[in-house]
Amino acid sequence: MHLLRLSAIIFLTSPAFAQTPSSREPAVVFHASMDNVKATFGPAEPVAHVKPGGLLEANSLDCFGNALQKPGDPFSNIKIDNPLTGPFYIDGAEPGDTLVVHILDLQVDSKQGVGTFGPGFGAANSTHYTPMLEKEQLPSVAWYYPIDNERKMITFQALDSNFKVEFPMHPFLGCIGVAPAHGEARSSIVPAEFGGNMDAPEVSPGNTLYLPVHVRGALFYFGDGHAAMGDGEVAGSAVEVPMQAKFRVDLIKGKSTDWPRLENDHELMAAGIYRPVDDAVRIAVTELVAWIHRDYGLSELDAYELLSKVGKLHLTEMVDPNYVVIASVEKKYLPPRK
Amino acid sequence: MHLLRLSAIIFLTSPAFAQTPSSREPAVVFHASMDNVKATFGPAEPVAHVKPGGLLEANSLDCFGNALQKPGDPFSNIKIDNPLTGPFYIDGAEPGDTLVVHILDLQVDSKQGVGTFGPGFGAANSTHYTPMLEKEQLPSVAWYYPIDNERKMITFQALDSNFKVEFPMHPFLGCIGVAPAHGEARSSIVPAEFGGNMDAPEVSPGNTLYLPVHVRGALFYFGDGHAAMGDGEVAGSAVEVPMQAKFRVDLIKGKSTDWPRLENDHELMAAGIYRPVDDAVRIAVTELVAWIHRDYGLSELDAYELLSKVGKLHLTEMVDPNYVVIASVEKKYLPPRK
Amino acid sequence: MHLLRLSAIIFLTSPAFAQTPSSREPAVVFHASMDNVKATFGPAEPVAHVKPGGLLEANSLDCFGNALQKPGDPFSNIKIDNPLTGPFYIDGAEPGDTLVVHILDLQVDSKQGVGTFGPGFGAANSTHYTPMLEKEQLPSVAWYYPIDNERKMITFQALDSNFKVEFPMHPFLGCIGVAPAHGEARSSIVPAEFGGNMDAPEVSPGNTLYLPVHVRGALFYFGDGHAAMGDGEVAGSAVEVPMQAKFRVDLIKGKSTDWPRLENDHELMAAGIYRPVDDAVRIAVTELVAWIHRDYGLSELDAYELLSKVGKLHLTEMVDPNYVVIASVEKKYLPPRK
Amino acid sequence: MHLLRLSAIIFLTSPAFAQTPSSREPAVVFHASMDNVKATFGPAEPVAHVKPGGLLEANSLDCFGNALQKPGDPFSNIKIDNPLTGPFYIDGAEPGDTLVVHILDLQVDSKQGVGTFGPGFGAANSTHYTPMLEKEQLPSVAWYYPIDNERKMITFQALDSNFKVEFPMHPFLGCIGVAPAHGEARSSIVPAEFGGNMDAPEVSPGNTLYLPVHVRGALFYFGDGHAAMGDGEVAGSAVEVPMQAKFRVDLIKGKSTDWPRLENDHELMAAGIYRPVDDAVRIAVTELVAWIHRDYGLSELDAYELLSKVGKLHLTEMVDPNYVVIASVEKKYLPPRK
Repeated sequence: MHLLRLSAIIFLTSPAFAQTPSSREPAVVFHASMDNVKATFGPAEPVAHVKPGGLLEANSLDCFGNALQKPGDPFSNIKIDNPLTGPFYIDGAEPGDTLVVHILDLQVDSKQGVGTFGPGFGAANSTHYTPMLEKEQLPSVAWYYPIDNERKMITFQALDSNFKVEFPMHPFLGCIGVAPAHGEARSSIVPAEFGGNMDAPEVSPGNTLYLPVHVRGALFYFGDGHAAMGDGEVAGSAVEVPMQAKFRVDLIKGKSTDWPRLENDHELMAAGIYRPVDDAVRIAVTELVAWIHRDYGLSELDAYELLSKVGKLHLTEMVDPNYVVIASVEKKYLPPRK
Repeated sequence: MHLLRLSAIIFLTSPAFAQTPSSREPAVVFHASMDNVKATFGPAEPVAHVKPGGLLEANSLDCFGNALQKPGDPFSNIKIDNPLTGPFYIDGAEPGDTLVVHILDLQVDSKQGVGTFGPGFGAANSTHYTPMLEKEQLPSVAWYYPIDNERKMITFQALDSNFKVEFPMHPFLGCIGVAPAHGEARSSIVPAEFGGNMDAPEVSPGNTLYLPVHVRGALFYFGDGHAAMGDGEVAGSAVEVPMQAKFRVDLIKGKSTDWPRLENDHELMAAGIYRPVDDAVRIAVTELVAWIHRDYGLSELDAYELLSKVGKLHLTEMVDPNYVVIASVEKKYLPPRK
Repeated sequence: MHLLRLSAIIFLTSPAFAQTPSSREPAVVFHASMDNVKATFGPAEPVAHVKPGGLLEANSLDCFGNALQKPGDPFSNIKIDNPLTGPFYIDGAEPGDTLVVHILDLQVDSKQGVGTFGPGFGAANSTHYTPMLEKEQLPSVAWYYPIDNERKMITFQALDSNFKVEFPMHPFLGCIGVAPAHGEARSSIVPAEFGGNMDAPEVSPGNTLYLPVHVRGALFYFGDGHAAMGDGEVAGSAVEVPMQAKFRVDLIKGKSTDWPRLENDHELMAAGIYRPVDDAVRIAVTELVAWIHRDYGLSELDAYELLSKVGKLHLTEMVDPNYVVIASVEKKYLPPRK
Repeated sequence: MHLLRLSAIIFLTSPAFAQTPSSREPAVVFHASMDNVKATFGPAEPVAHVKPGGLLEANSLDCFGNALQKPGDPFSNIKIDNPLTGPFYIDGAEPGDTLVVHILDLQVDSKQGVGTFGPGFGAANSTHYTPMLEKEQLPSVAWYYPIDNERKMITFQALDSNFKVEFPMHPFLGCIGVAPAHGEARSSIVPAEFGGNMDAPEVSPGNTLYLPVHVRGALFYFGDGHAAMGDGEVAGSAVEVPMQAKFRVDLIKGKSTDWPRLENDHELMAAGIYRPVDDAVRIAVTELVAWIHRDYGLSELDAYELLSKVGKLHLTEMVDPNYVVIASVEKKYLPPRK
């Protein structure tokens, strides 16, 4: 954690980073409920202000607004998809800056998670955007997942047999982002340049997320907690849970990023977000090559070649309106940062 | 069906693996050279016969036919791309069977590997199949990689600076496959239903590969050894090396597989091979769901949901004429095999 | 349902079309200027109200806000992309209705059109969403097109030679749409379910456009007039012009459409809007099959087969953030409307 | 180079076309039957030799090998898909040349055509390469189309109702091509660089097709006659018919084409063949830009811009293993040929 901050200092330019007064200030604490959640990443009245360097502690509802609690609860109970906590106004943030979100802690806020399948959503079935004439065959169903928060284990229970199995928890936020560029407001099911519904397990404690600031105050939102998820989120959901989150937010003034990036002590991670997956890969790879070139000094061609030998590609989800790929490289394979 | 179960038992669990009668026969040993390599997966005179259960030991040239040996060697030295060792005629193999290839050992057959970039080939540059009007900007270049076979480490040396770094070896075969269906012959740069240039790190010692048999004798080929590779093989090459390989081949009679599959003690792995990546994912996921459903008894919907929680997707390459995704699941998350 | 049939009858067949009571009301007339244009399809204060059945007459600025007037005018003059005229509040429109827009007349409002190419935008060059490492090679340039409004002819003048050639005018609106669903606001360069920047030559006089109503009053916008355009708008622009437009708007109450549709006396046209083009085709074809099935009584399979013999596919643009395909069929090949 | 210019002149302008010495030779006449058709584009014993400038007259079976003749005929009667007539050895053709095929005449060789739908094949249903978990819903069915060869009209008869309708005939060849490069043999359902199953209505009388020569003699094949087809061949078939064809073949020595091209007095047409459709468009557009630049002298940027104003894109099929787009421009919009 210390090293993380150190790394951040170098990157952000500020030797004074660790001593900024704001980091000693009390955390901004906010409680999200169905009364104050939002359905879009976009302009909205801020629910609170946070200073650069400040701590933010807040909860999020699950992706169904906590509407599914037990077998038999009808999907019609769901009033909102991916209800978002926020927006938080980051003091001093202006278009052209980069918002830095240190994800300090995520605690699953329930003893149970939910998974669902619904026709029209999924990576290997007919969907709204890849419709097929056979489209109405699969039913809508929900699975309930007991969660053992002490042992950090989750139980899958099959619907069509008695099979049960445990698998490990990996808490992260499916939704995290800011108000988009160009005056847009985007549904909370959409990931794009502004972050959003990236469904990236990389958005987990210990990692730092960089997002482009498009409006004054940035307008930071988060939600859609996941206790665990498979690559691609192929059937359309993770282990969906309410979450308690703790962040430190910061700003890089006068320097923007075209697409979301993540970083920790060990890795650089560049997100590419679009369709088809091919284009998400192209975005992520060109972004990572540019990052290595600019901050670590390898030529673009050397960086490209090096990724061809030691780079990683992670397809986080292939079910939302845009698809997300994260290209990453371990810092130990790079020259010292410039 | 009997053989399938037998094969599965032997492969998956058996300390008796090495004592099956067939394995006591002497291995078929073959030496590949520029005089006998092939440029296509397709019908050709077999170079040797192998009995089901038998061992095969043979070498492969690197993907350039070993034509690049030192800085300055011109690309025009390359006479063939991905020269293939083979074909090997598997006695008794008939269309509708499955060829089982146990990858027992792979030894890098050189103290040096090569990586190259050439215009028109790569995941994030203008290519033959994704051409752009800006297409002629990047040069053709080669990187040479010293390999320490004892320490299993490889050294990257930047071309445009003095930067050097070591990374670990993971030997695998980029090319492995059989003669295609429908009387086709495919270039050794192509992956498809028959295997081929899958560039899958999963084709490594300890894993078993299942391939569909389309012609009598199956006609097994391999080549394109890689000492290590990043996900996606994004700049178009791995650490390209000659290889010494050792396989045990087997047959599952009367039962075919639509697409290549891999398996070891711990995982099921289904390959999807096409363009765009989205379709490769769809193929891999529907194949893995079907595999779990048929052999492990979960309903298709339960299997789909389970993958959405614990499944993995690996984009092995996005540079060849088709793209390759491997969907996998750990067996510990599945019911006992039926 | 009653209104739907009535509207259809009136539109499709009726010589009495001009005498419907509503059409006797004076047209709503509005003048767009840089002071009142909008940059997004989304919620905004209406500039005027229009009653169902009423006429609307208004102008639109060209896609650059009329900022490029002569060779040498810098691209930095452009303050807004695709400035939109509107929004117009359609009295009585509620979510779940369909907005019917009869395009009565379009007059090119200039003696000159403009075409531009800029790096990062186009169907066959590196773009924001399909980035390539060679990305910065092509320059930003503008072509100016003299327009002969009497002869309805346009002149192309090459920049790099003296070649000139005339081609015919086909005026249409690149942008036409309503406020999106889910509380979204989308940039005026985006086409999607709500219409938007479809760049469809089918949005021309004589055709009727159906759009889904997502918010009270529908909030109708238009702009981005084109004097002519090639399929795909491949280099990123049409012959961009200001326009004078005349519409009659109407409502189909209680019945929605998932995607934009167009119709005239002779054809049914269903739009599919997404990426890759493959998915735009799938959307357009499944929509057209459903339309034929529901309104003309062919089974889905017969409709699908018939389209395979006489259907048309038109790729209107492959340059905007989503791509647009219009699937169409001539009514003479269909049974009588139910 | 001499031949190229000669060929172009003769073809494009010359009333003297029919009197070239070679055309006075008797036509090569060949009769295809189930005994001599082929299932792949690839190396095979030639069925006849044709001299450059010579005429070729031959028939083709329909895409089912004429196996479906009346309602109720089982699909199991089909022994081969797209049986190919050929190969014809073109005397003097060598790798690096271009084969020129003038399509002189096509006569539908039946009073009936057939259309079919089968699961796993089609543009808007689950397929082999775009599989969905709902995949087995639609049935296999056949439609029979009476053909009036005098009136050049075809009758569609719905299966699920009594609806009938006539539509016009437009005869063309779905399959036309040569042996592929790199020693490949490709199934007759595949279109690619070598031509193949392009399902392009542009392969019709009056048009000339240019194909790359990859092997000595070129090895020319054709088949899969269509009496008519909708754009995209969306349900998977056209009006499938046996055909009588008449060609004149020619060679352009020492000059190749990367992708198939077509030409007539009025148009240049460049084919792009791959997946997704986006890439087929990119191929077709870059090829057409290059063609205009090289032969008509416009700069690449001017050519790109001109296509953005007057170019056409035709998605011929989106059902075969690769998809086909033809980008075209009318010659009247181009400078004089250089």
